[in-house]
Amino acid sequence: MREKRVVIVGAVALGPKVACRVKRLDPGAKVLMVDQDEFISYGGCGIPYFISGDVSDVQELMSTSFHMVRNPEFFRDVKDVEVRTKTKATAIDRNSKELTVKNLDTGKEERISYDYLVLATGATPRKPPIEGIDLPGVMTISNLHDAVKIKEKISKGQVGKAVIIGAGPIGCEVAEALADLWGIETVIVELLPSVLPAFLEPPMGQIVKKHLEDNGVTVYTGETVEKITSNNGSLEVHTSNRKISADLVLVSVGVTPRGELARDAGLLVTPQGGIVVNNRLQTTDPWIYAGGDCIVLPHLVTGKLVHMPLGSLANRQGRVIGTNIAGGYATFDGVIGSFAVKVFELGVASTGITFNRAKEEGFDPVRTYVVQADRAHFYPTQELMYMALIVDRKTRKILGAQAIGKNGDAVVGRINAIAALIQTGQGTLDKLSNLEIAYTPPFSSAMDIVNAAANTAENIIEGLNKTIDPDEFVEELEENKNLKVLDVRSPANAKPFIEKFGELWVNIPQEQLKYRTNEIPDTENLRIFCNSGLRSYEALRQIEYLTGKSGLNIQGGAAMIKMTGFIELPQDEN
Amino acid sequence: MREKRVVIVGAVALGPKVACRVKRLDPGAKVLMVDQDEFISYGGCGIPYFISGDVSDVQELMSTSFHMVRNPEFFRDVKDVEVRTKTKATAIDRNSKELTVKNLDTGKEERISYDYLVLATGATPRKPPIEGIDLPGVMTISNLHDAVKIKEKISKGQVGKAVIIGAGPIGCEVAEALADLWGIETVIVELLPSVLPAFLEPPMGQIVKKHLEDNGVTVYTGETVEKITSNNGSLEVHTSNRKISADLVLVSVGVTPRGELARDAGLLVTPQGGIVVNNRLQTTDPWIYAGGDCIVLPHLVTGKLVHMPLGSLANRQGRVIGTNIAGGYATFDGVIGSFAVKVFELGVASTGITFNRAKEEGFDPVRTYVVQADRAHFYPTQELMYMALIVDRKTRKILGAQAIGKNGDAVVGRINAIAALIQTGQGTLDKLSNLEIAYTPPFSSAMDIVNAAANTAENIIEGLNKTIDPDEFVEELEENKNLKVLDVRSPANAKPFIEKFGELWVNIPQEQLKYRTNEIPDTENLRIFCNSGLRSYEALRQIEYLTGKSGLNIQGGAAMIKMTGFIELPQDEN
Repeated sequence: MREKRVVIVGAVALGPKVACRVKRLDPGAKVLMVDQDEFISYGGCGIPYFISGDVSDVQELMSTSFHMVRNPEFFRDVKDVEVRTKTKATAIDRNSKELTVKNLDTGKEERISYDYLVLATGATPRKPPIEGIDLPGVMTISNLHDAVKIKEKISKGQVGKAVIIGAGPIGCEVAEALADLWGIETVIVELLPSVLPAFLEPPMGQIVKKHLEDNGVTVYTGETVEKITSNNGSLEVHTSNRKISADLVLVSVGVTPRGELARDAGLLVTPQGGIVVNNRLQTTDPWIYAGGDCIVLPHLVTGKLVHMPLGSLANRQGRVIGTNIAGGYATFDGVIGSFAVKVFELGVASTGITFNRAKEEGFDPVRTYVVQADRAHFYPTQELMYMALIVDRKTRKILGAQAIGKNGDAVVGRINAIAALIQTGQGTLDKLSNLEIAYTPPFSSAMDIVNAAANTAENIIEGLNKTIDPDEFVEELEENKNLKVLDVRSPANAKPFIEKFGELWVNIPQEQLKYRTNEIPDTENLRIFCNSGLRSYEALRQIEYLTGKSGLNIQGGAAMIKMTGFIELPQDEN
Repeated sequence: MREKRVVIVGAVALGPKVACRVKRLDPGAKVLMVDQDEFISYGGCGIPYFISGDVSDVQELMSTSFHMVRNPEFFRDVKDVEVRTKTKATAIDRNSKELTVKNLDTGKEERISYDYLVLATGATPRKPPIEGIDLPGVMTISNLHDAVKIKEKISKGQVGKAVIIGAGPIGCEVAEALADLWGIETVIVELLPSVLPAFLEPPMGQIVKKHLEDNGVTVYTGETVEKITSNNGSLEVHTSNRKISADLVLVSVGVTPRGELARDAGLLVTPQGGIVVNNRLQTTDPWIYAGGDCIVLPHLVTGKLVHMPLGSLANRQGRVIGTNIAGGYATFDGVIGSFAVKVFELGVASTGITFNRAKEEGFDPVRTYVVQADRAHFYPTQELMYMALIVDRKTRKILGAQAIGKNGDAVVGRINAIAALIQTGQGTLDKLSNLEIAYTPPFSSAMDIVNAAANTAENIIEGLNKTIDPDEFVEELEENKNLKVLDVRSPANAKPFIEKFGELWVNIPQEQLKYRTNEIPDTENLRIFCNSGLRSYEALRQIEYLTGKSGLNIQGGAAMIKMTGFIELPQDEN
């Protein structure tokens, strides 16, 4: 039997992984990667850290952990894989099993026959169709060429002001890179009303927004960019609300899968360009596999096909494709969209879907916000962690989880544990409630925040904990509805709040509730307040028992409201 | 209907949790906690941090996160729960549903009737039956009284030298507390051949041992303590190998569940004292619940009853008992033994069972060691993480996982994610291989270490990766067997090894293998070596293809061998 010929289109993340896996399983296979670019096999997710200077040299993004540059010679000698760069795949002949490629230097075309073809064609940065989007100085951040150009411009001192369009993960990372390391006056403009809107509930996004602002980045949410103009070499970004001048405009509003080659070959491709694959990552032609940023996959929570362009998924999918091509059997069942980002001092992570997304998908979601120390509360390095959990009321399945905190690894670790539960299809509340988070005071609490979040969600579903979300409460406060807020903390904690809010704010410490029932405000609109929403929940239960009346517990309490900066709250002693 | 009377024996961790949960679900219930001690509701796991001084005041261990001391008045006013301290439960009359208690101050006995009784009687520190175990200055670390006494002795300057018997988690934590903060000359003596033997494979334990030693703690493993003698006020610990003088001897060799009260009442109790409960945490009497350190529960990996005395489990179990007593339905299905400890600069965590335990339980386990950066390898704060994964060959179920690294939260987060998989019963290799660890360069790699560990284990099971464990390799080297080690790293990396090991050590960089096949040593005993075991695996596959011969890949490579300090290896440039 002659050796397998495997041809891979695209050599950034998935392609190299497929190539190496095939060769390890079947060292005799003939593997060829073609890529239209000259840069291959690089860590694209490292680009913001190259711009910031954390990664000093672009070569580091193309190197192995043992400092070898992954260039065509590396693949030839170390991996026994042939690579042709600056070579564009232009057509697939599925009948003859041949790929047509064009050398971008010489213009020469060639037909290459394959036994297995792998499409790793990636994605293209989206460009909103607005005036001025193609002006010099308006750039996307999609590959190393862009990255080098941006950094060159910055390091030459040509960028005093920058505007980033889009408050997604890359927008936030690049904002930090520009503002923190280079001291560039940086503005983010986001169409949607909050930061990281695809990943975070609005109050969680608000925490990130405030943190960006506290670190000198200006953030305008809910603003449309209408056009970009050029004025004597300086750019001007016109939004629905204002004009912002800039030396550099970075467009970071997502990417579109590159499915043209597949579509032209008659493979099933979504209207948005995502190549459709089965769980072995075969396209509708069994000899052609696809993976990485050019495919769509079932979302494990919604069951719908989604486009999830992440280098981590590409790597895992690459191994699955390699195994299958080498004659093994491996599957990739879908994605849950786990995500993480570092924004200045905060670690931010999420998995699954948001509350609004859950409603759109026909779930009956319940949302809880929990604030708790990430270590034992008596351990010196503890920091508060802010978590949102979204659960389906009927099935009690966890639909999504989000966390923010200063110990970033702790934040990401919690989300990964919840993601693991969801990914098995066993992610119900009772499982999360008893999830065995390894306990030791320097790294966790006896009742960890993930357990506490599950317990709170269960209490809400059971009707025990009647809640109002922090942003809803702030809205009530601002609209000056006929509220009474019962603050069950100590008088010292409550004092400045009473000074600010006057008669609206009533203080009865929780331990005095049963002796002072007559002072509990007699109103339809009672809100109960403490530092985190925990004592106020217990107080709510006691008030219901003692007085027969009820109220709403403000989720996340003072901690959440302060961290979001929704309203300026007076300092207290906590 | 009259109000429920709930009586709880023991008021440290589980008891208070039951009490509060019952009261939140059923505020009218009458709840009484009795405890023979005067200290109640404290974080016992914080004791090492109180001794070290990280926690300055013993009150902090008894306080809520909002700084209220959890004393009987707190329980009365905040929780509406009655507490009687210094009150010992002496007998249960199951027919009349009455508990007999004795006031330890007055000696007065009383019978208290209950509808539901909860046993939270905890555990007693084990004392090995050796001469001198009761001498003054020989102490256990089991409660706040011990803690206060130990810290008093230390802060009075009475302790220059200390011996800790037992290298379990508490032994390691206390060693750090004594040596680091107080500068006490500290020795750990452990009966078994390695540190943290219940939780870690020997080479992983060796990493911890070396780290303790690097931080000034002397560790003797595989040594029995035979007796302790007193000599002019100074103690002397006689082990199988030596005599060690000490001002303080701390015995930390585990705990025994306190099941006497239950056994005397005719409930099912194991010979070791563990109270047997069902998954709703009822004892064999449906009106009597038990939880925390006094019970045994099924291990979710082995199915066997185990005793797992952890404050975190007690808290989760407390909620389950509270729900059930209040008329709800909650279950606690078992434990997987997730564990974490901070030892000086290292975070250490594990879940499931060890390789040897797996063999004893009749599994056919495969063990892999993987070393990889905990962030993207190009990200500045990355640290190497050392992971062991134990997998059943037949079912491909994950039986256990262990990790060590300097970013402790990152270590614990990885183990928690694997534990979540195991806990659902869905913890197979293919699930872990594709586990969606949230990816961003500051917190994880595109192919995270947990995925890499699963992939490596799969490659071993498939017979692709033929391995030798680091400790076995070191043994071979020491026994000077007729080995050839093929180092596939760069000549600069290999040079000092060749200088040390001479002809045994052959260097062919991986990228030159296919051009230098004639230099590949022709021996039965070929070992292949690189920095982490990754390149050497690929090299092994290439050698098999190129020469038809084979060898064994040294798991964990240079990184693992250096970190264990098994043998003194020369410095290289990596």
